[in-house]
Amino acid sequence: MASPSGAKVPRTERGRRTLRALLDAAADEFGERGFHDAAIAKIAERAGTAIGSFYTYFDSKEAIFRALVQDMSLQVKEHVVPHILREPDRLSGERAGIEAFLGFVRHHKALYTIIDQARFVAADAHHDHYQGIADGYRASLDQAVARGEIQPGDNEVRAWAIMGMNVFLGLRYGVLTDDGDPKDISATATDLIANGLSMRGAD
Amino acid sequence: MASPSGAKVPRTERGRRTLRALLDAAADEFGERGFHDAAIAKIAERAGTAIGSFYTYFDSKEAIFRALVQDMSLQVKEHVVPHILREPDRLSGERAGIEAFLGFVRHHKALYTIIDQARFVAADAHHDHYQGIADGYRASLDQAVARGEIQPGDNEVRAWAIMGMNVFLGLRYGVLTDDGDPKDISATATDLIANGLSMRGAD
Repeated sequence: MASPSGAKVPRTERGRRTLRALLDAAADEFGERGFHDAAIAKIAERAGTAIGSFYTYFDSKEAIFRALVQDMSLQVKEHVVPHILREPDRLSGERAGIEAFLGFVRHHKALYTIIDQARFVAADAHHDHYQGIADGYRASLDQAVARGEIQPGDNEVRAWAIMGMNVFLGLRYGVLTDDGDPKDISATATDLIANGLSMRGAD
Repeated sequence: MASPSGAKVPRTERGRRTLRALLDAAADEFGERGFHDAAIAKIAERAGTAIGSFYTYFDSKEAIFRALVQDMSLQVKEHVVPHILREPDRLSGERAGIEAFLGFVRHHKALYTIIDQARFVAADAHHDHYQGIADGYRASLDQAVARGEIQPGDNEVRAWAIMGMNVFLGLRYGVLTDDGDPKDISATATDLIANGLSMRGAD
């Protein structure tokens, strides 16, 4: 039985641990050496498993790469979404979400290398990664409009715009440097999203 | 004599045309085949020049790739900035700038492929490309604060946030699809940047 990513689903706890070790090893190998130079033998070695175990779960280097892109999308989501849901409304959720995302990126710098490589190695996985995030974002904006929390507007444009903000803040403050306190960065970004840059009457 | 990009500066009009043809050919070749599979011979062939002409201007495939990243940064800037400067203030400039950028991307889809490849082929050129745009953005935000047009705030965070918005709107509405009228997309994005999503008193 294959999961949508092409990876066979392990039936035992030991199998799940091996699959996890292979995906983490693949993140390191692809992150450091790039897709073209990465080797299945090195991924198995980094994972501390025999090369046969690799082929239990994946047919090829491309198959584990695709599974890794899906896995990373899921890891980001699982890390960030609970922080958003803990907040009372969309805009405080935004602040918590950006802060959590910056924290995630600082500990998973390979995320950007992998996703950018996906454009060349597996263009459909690259598109799916961003479209999936945008769809979730758009749905949450639609709900916030329905609850009267934010202005109505084109939430597809807004979803891509806000996703781009977050991706580039992660690049600047998580990948390229560890400058700045994620709390302050997310406060500035959220103030932009909530209130914009225009002068306000009260100021 | 070498320019900062490593390309020799042509002394004649004919030389300038050859260099231009080589850079355009490189954009097509790297855009279609990727850095690893791209060939100097194919670039020269696409440019309609002898391979010797290539080596008049560039020492290697990496040299022309680096020159191309600089050239594309400059082309974006030269296309977008006049539209911004024509407007009376930063926020209408923003609207005009996003609209012009989307128009540029629709006719230069290779831009994204080249810049994303730069992360792997020439990480410093990739960083310089984005830092250069962010620096220009930040300076224009600092000036807008000084003129009292926008709220004071952390303009480095804002510059990266707004750059990310524009890059992702270009990806969604210029590269992945040609959906939507750039006027409407930039109006939505500019309303987000100017006024944010929060409910306003008057509505």
